Amino acid sequence: MTNKGLSTDPYKGVRDFYPEEMAIQSYIFDVWAQTAESFGFERYDASILEPSELYKSKGLENEEMVNEQTYTFIDRGDREVTLRPEMTPTVARMIAGRRRELSFPVRWYSIPNLFRYERPQKGRLREHYQLNCDIFGADDYSVDVEIISLAYHMLLNFGADASMFEIRINNRKEMTELYNAAGVTDSNMQTKITRLNDKFRKITKDEYKNALMEIVQDKEITQKIYAIVSGEHKEEQNEVLRGLQLLGIKNVVVDRSLARGFDYYTGTIFELFDVSGENNRAMLGGGRYDNLTSLFGGEPVSGIGFGMGDVTMRDFLQTHDLLTSNITAPLLSILPTDSAYNMEAQKIAQEFRVAGVSVSVDCSTKKVGKKISDAAEAFVSYVLVLGENEIRDKKYSVKNLEEKVEVSGTLAELTEKIAT
Amino acid sequence: MTNKGLSTDPYKGVRDFYPEEMAIQSYIFDVWAQTAESFGFERYDASILEPSELYKSKGLENEEMVNEQTYTFIDRGDREVTLRPEMTPTVARMIAGRRRELSFPVRWYSIPNLFRYERPQKGRLREHYQLNCDIFGADDYSVDVEIISLAYHMLLNFGADASMFEIRINNRKEMTELYNAAGVTDSNMQTKITRLNDKFRKITKDEYKNALMEIVQDKEITQKIYAIVSGEHKEEQNEVLRGLQLLGIKNVVVDRSLARGFDYYTGTIFELFDVSGENNRAMLGGGRYDNLTSLFGGEPVSGIGFGMGDVTMRDFLQTHDLLTSNITAPLLSILPTDSAYNMEAQKIAQEFRVAGVSVSVDCSTKKVGKKISDAAEAFVSYVLVLGENEIRDKKYSVKNLEEKVEVSGTLAELTEKIAT
Repeated sequence: MTNKGLSTDPYKGVRDFYPEEMAIQSYIFDVWAQTAESFGFERYDASILEPSELYKSKGLENEEMVNEQTYTFIDRGDREVTLRPEMTPTVARMIAGRRRELSFPVRWYSIPNLFRYERPQKGRLREHYQLNCDIFGADDYSVDVEIISLAYHMLLNFGADASMFEIRINNRKEMTELYNAAGVTDSNMQTKITRLNDKFRKITKDEYKNALMEIVQDKEITQKIYAIVSGEHKEEQNEVLRGLQLLGIKNVVVDRSLARGFDYYTGTIFELFDVSGENNRAMLGGGRYDNLTSLFGGEPVSGIGFGMGDVTMRDFLQTHDLLTSNITAPLLSILPTDSAYNMEAQKIAQEFRVAGVSVSVDCSTKKVGKKISDAAEAFVSYVLVLGENEIRDKKYSVKNLEEKVEVSGTLAELTEKIAT
Repeated sequence: MTNKGLSTDPYKGVRDFYPEEMAIQSYIFDVWAQTAESFGFERYDASILEPSELYKSKGLENEEMVNEQTYTFIDRGDREVTLRPEMTPTVARMIAGRRRELSFPVRWYSIPNLFRYERPQKGRLREHYQLNCDIFGADDYSVDVEIISLAYHMLLNFGADASMFEIRINNRKEMTELYNAAGVTDSNMQTKITRLNDKFRKITKDEYKNALMEIVQDKEITQKIYAIVSGEHKEEQNEVLRGLQLLGIKNVVVDRSLARGFDYYTGTIFELFDVSGENNRAMLGGGRYDNLTSLFGGEPVSGIGFGMGDVTMRDFLQTHDLLTSNITAPLLSILPTDSAYNMEAQKIAQEFRVAGVSVSVDCSTKKVGKKISDAAEAFVSYVLVLGENEIRDKKYSVKNLEEKVEVSGTLAELTEKIAT
């Protein structure tokens, strides 16, 4: 047999989660879940496989994404299947399916993995995880405030403070009114401007103005729209902003250039940015989409929600030195001095477990010294070295690896000691 | 707009997890995770996307599965990709990839979703979840005992007792010795007998004997093999069985007909069965596979592990009346009597949350009586009705929905009361 073999690399653009990576992932997921549940959100889930038509329907249409950026294939039964690229169409489908049974408002969250076929490049993965939080069946503005407040507390519960990030909000309905007031009443032209606004922060003022002029073909209107989008045009605070301030959330700005990619938003839209300058992509984005469930027939159910990715979350935590992890290590490791005692070690391990102590057995053929240092490296708290004497006398010693303190006694005495 | 629209059904053969289903799923996953961690197992994960070659290589070969039962497609970069049908090849790949850095023995667990393209039929899903537990780098028999003991405690920790299930064990090496002793030394013939044994419990004695006779072409050998497989041939207990008995695990039988589907097993194999008669498929199965990582080149790392599906787990719990769920409901729900008070409700909710109380706000336009009954149905413990008087006087009443007791006071008084 040669020394070569199959590659141990994962598929291109996806990640392996070895235990130390998984511990970070678990930490992030746990904080997300606990925060969502503190706001009364219930967890749901669905399969990554969805009928492709879910992403092709009017209202969800985003041609570039469906045609070029999804994993779509034909199954053996001639059905067209897509690996979900986002969760909102799925949750809209589920809400629509139980519209009559559900008691609204409904607050739901999920932590799905999402797939996009992207050209491989740094930081652009083909699979990532995304927290999704949505409130359905409530269109009062206080709900817009609540969902943004939830996003805000997501970051605070990781130990962030408000100086580290900024919430940018806009509103699709207000933008339509502002466009109308500025003299742009054609909805196609409005859409074109919104798409241009998406680039506002990435191009120069002049580039923006020139592109705008090309759309509206009028110098005065160009000036008016520019004033709105750039924030030069002063407006009254809207009620969502006031609501957030009432809750003490002050790192919020109205950003009229905020467009969001998806066409299904109808009201409030928002994004959350790291202000350190290290991470330029939005960490979180969302908005209100009042007509999405109507794609499935029947009365529409209004919705508002956001999505927040694990990769950007992790980048933010790393940048601000907030990253930690939920490493799980057994409290105790039993270290037989000879493999002849391995079975006895298993028996002792079981007695500790009955008392609620998590235990592993190092059944390798390594020397005891090496077993102890390996246990310490794996964040084990206590070790019990098991040799001939211990087995004969039924007296054991348990050593605390951090405090370097050793206590001896019978199993009953030691389990009681450690378990508490 | 017509009343018809897109279907709200999920893709064929997969499940939507509405919150009440998700709560059951979370309960099962939590018990799995806690039990694995009590044995010192660390959690890992990987993507559902794997290069197809991982399932085509010799040693993992299971032609029917790879060719007819997987979701396999070509990606836009001309790579052949498979949605993982099982986790063992993935974990072997990951172990092989860090063979040099890892400190063995390694105990790993994961709860992946797995995909199989199967003809739709009752109870046969195209996507299911499976707990996978494996120990790598230890070939002492005490490790075989440990992994079976872990499987046993998985069920006990759901509240099952040993009378509800049976563990059947066998050993590939011992079978080879028994075949040899019975006069069958040809390894192809041995494999054919093993495949026939897989059907032993599904066909009659005579059918089995006839099929066996066709393979071995010798009446005496047929008798000998039958005696072995049926258990008529008395043997000494092997050390794994003795080890399990030492741990007090008595619901174990040696079953020489046990074959397991996969060709990569090399030693101990085992399955766990519900004895109620309600569920005939194995709930859990696994074994030792000492050569799997060698597919990736370099020195092989021995492994032993098992997989346990969520669907069979749930069927077992249901049959034995052990099914429960981790329903997450907010401790408190605030019920404004008018939507004009919704924003004030959000503010009060935030103050409770600071004290560690989970809170939702019913911002719907329903009458208060309906809001209270909806909260009770959603397993909320306390409600706070918020009206004109409460806002004016800054005095609130919190009602315990189960005990029907109401306490009044300022926010500070009430948060302290509920939070403890």
